[in-house]
Amino acid sequence: MTTAEVCALAKEASYRLATKTDAEKKAMLIAMANGISDEADAILQANADDLFIANENGKEPSFIERLTLYKSRIRQMVEGIMQVADLPDPVGEVTDKWTLPNGLSISKVRAPLGVIAIIYEARPNVTCDAAALAIKSGNAVILRGSREAINSNLAIFNAMKNALLKGGYDAEVLQFLADPEREATAELLKQSDTVDVVIPRGGEGLKKFVLENSAIPVIASAGGNCHTYVEKTADLKMADNVLFNAKVSRPSVCNATEQLIVDRAIAAPFLSKSLDRLSRQGVRILGCPETCRLYPIAELATEEDFATEHLGLVLSVKVVSGYKEAIERINKYGTHHSDAIISTSNEAIEAFKAGVDSAAVYVNASTRFTDGFEYGFGAEMAISTQKLHARGPLGLKQLTSEKYVVVGDGQVRK
Amino acid sequence: MTTAEVCALAKEASYRLATKTDAEKKAMLIAMANGISDEADAILQANADDLFIANENGKEPSFIERLTLYKSRIRQMVEGIMQVADLPDPVGEVTDKWTLPNGLSISKVRAPLGVIAIIYEARPNVTCDAAALAIKSGNAVILRGSREAINSNLAIFNAMKNALLKGGYDAEVLQFLADPEREATAELLKQSDTVDVVIPRGGEGLKKFVLENSAIPVIASAGGNCHTYVEKTADLKMADNVLFNAKVSRPSVCNATEQLIVDRAIAAPFLSKSLDRLSRQGVRILGCPETCRLYPIAELATEEDFATEHLGLVLSVKVVSGYKEAIERINKYGTHHSDAIISTSNEAIEAFKAGVDSAAVYVNASTRFTDGFEYGFGAEMAISTQKLHARGPLGLKQLTSEKYVVVGDGQVRK
Repeated sequence: MTTAEVCALAKEASYRLATKTDAEKKAMLIAMANGISDEADAILQANADDLFIANENGKEPSFIERLTLYKSRIRQMVEGIMQVADLPDPVGEVTDKWTLPNGLSISKVRAPLGVIAIIYEARPNVTCDAAALAIKSGNAVILRGSREAINSNLAIFNAMKNALLKGGYDAEVLQFLADPEREATAELLKQSDTVDVVIPRGGEGLKKFVLENSAIPVIASAGGNCHTYVEKTADLKMADNVLFNAKVSRPSVCNATEQLIVDRAIAAPFLSKSLDRLSRQGVRILGCPETCRLYPIAELATEEDFATEHLGLVLSVKVVSGYKEAIERINKYGTHHSDAIISTSNEAIEAFKAGVDSAAVYVNASTRFTDGFEYGFGAEMAISTQKLHARGPLGLKQLTSEKYVVVGDGQVRK
Repeated sequence: MTTAEVCALAKEASYRLATKTDAEKKAMLIAMANGISDEADAILQANADDLFIANENGKEPSFIERLTLYKSRIRQMVEGIMQVADLPDPVGEVTDKWTLPNGLSISKVRAPLGVIAIIYEARPNVTCDAAALAIKSGNAVILRGSREAINSNLAIFNAMKNALLKGGYDAEVLQFLADPEREATAELLKQSDTVDVVIPRGGEGLKKFVLENSAIPVIASAGGNCHTYVEKTADLKMADNVLFNAKVSRPSVCNATEQLIVDRAIAAPFLSKSLDRLSRQGVRILGCPETCRLYPIAELATEEDFATEHLGLVLSVKVVSGYKEAIERINKYGTHHSDAIISTSNEAIEAFKAGVDSAAVYVNASTRFTDGFEYGFGAEMAISTQKLHARGPLGLKQLTSEKYVVVGDGQVRK
């Protein structure tokens, strides 16, 4: 089948899925979960094939670790699908309703997006996580994983698809594009007649390629160059705790703090204590000249360090004159992901909340909270840093659209 | 200045505008309206230059009519800005709020999109309509009109910009790209670092070009191949009235009905009466074979006629077996804009509401109501038929994004 034919099948199936009840979608997800559970051995065998090739190709240990499936990971995948199955169905929810003077009743109603294409790298579990979220929210899904995980992804996909077929469900809602070449991705990105949204999950190269080449609307996340700003009225003990958590609790993820900004008025006492604590934890400190004077262990930061998502135990530090300079820096150097202020000043907090142009703005809390599970969404497809449609964690609601349903008794327009 | 420099100026200005109060934005809009009023003569003179060239180039009367400004149209432009000034400010509105078990309070808060670029054809009034809507919703705006209206657009823009400067307001929120070549548009569409959204307003060629070439998220509307479906339980007198209004009240606009679908059970009595009434109004009828048998004045429709937005006094007619066939046809041949069912059957109505994948779904009302003013939004930037962000009329709320504001007292993530 051509890519266009696969997408057309998904489109037709999406119309059938859009009117399914929650009970029917739940039954499909349970079948998919059971399918993966039943086929665990075949999935592990396929994963061993991918791991063999990855090792032959000299892939890094961190890559191998992300690619590897264990029995426990397969159990987690199964449990993940079951959890999504139990979440409330967003489709049909009325989000707004009003009546016009002419008697027309207008409702805004959540409806599926239609067909969602997911383009992802490594991590085979995305195959079933994304499928479960898409189907639960009434969307057909086209999965397009990476070359390195092709055997694992295909085994997981086949386990789900065969389980749907065996159970007598509409298996066309699940589609897989097996050709891992970039030209095949480019072909997929042209299918705007049948695919409603593309979500790239992977490195910056993938996201850039998708954004630049897609005729289909994209939901994407920039990286997370997140800031914690310690304002001069801050409770410095709280600031120390929050910063430590934001930097150290999981430094490799997108919501970890990469940049510390601190007011000059409290820089000396705060930096000497808090940077010492971070240093002892193995964090490398890159500072502006003022930081380096106050804390000589810091290395001099380059301009680029302030715009860099370190994704590791590195922290850039900048001393500023006050909240206006802090807000400007965050908007200029940040990636509009998650940024925090630690402060007791109402004026500074209000200015920060209104002025910082990020998906998530934190007041006296760790940037690490930006996450669909933490926010209570029950699951997460990705995190968006773009302005259109949905910013922040993408849960089930964010995988829907809203249509107007207008009910009258014969009204005509003058 | 290069396009990139213009966009960067707009981006900087957008951060300043984002934190302005409603009173400040209102004052800016009043200044802009007064500027246009004061410069009415200069605007009419510039318009005369455009009209001279358009006539020299042998443009059609309908084109000339859209391009022409009269004193009354300038008055309408001024009044339009004043109306937008008085609308409620969407920025800062809290659309959702909840508290997590750990005490974190999460609010979803409306924030400006940032920088909106509008690419539009003819109709010089878009210059000030779009500027007013963008600024009222806290967004900087980049205006890029067509070659044919360049003098009119520039005169309107200058009147607004000079009024802002004279009043001591931040005039950088308003930007204009004067180079009307397509290469300049392509250059604009690359500025994803500084422009947050592009809205094309014009013909299908423009929209296709923008969708295929933009690295910036796009809000666009497909045309309106709108359907009215008369189900077998319909009140035929109501159906006749609604259809007549949907087809004839303003046939050249996107929410006019282009397609009639009618159940076989009531086709004979309904078609003979209603098609006669439409024919007498000058509507050309293109029918499926069954329609042509029942109503011999109809011409035989081609497959393409059913997928065509006629934008005039033409109606395609198809007889179907029931609502399932009708819903399938609408999703297949329509443009997902506005589609109506006329029915008294709860079963058919519910199936139609859930199954028709359109921005606006009507029950017993005319498709002509899809409009920001009719919906009570007070104004409209455009109508979207895409699934992401906003479907249907784009009012002030739809020109905002929603960010999460998370307030704590020192919470850290485990």
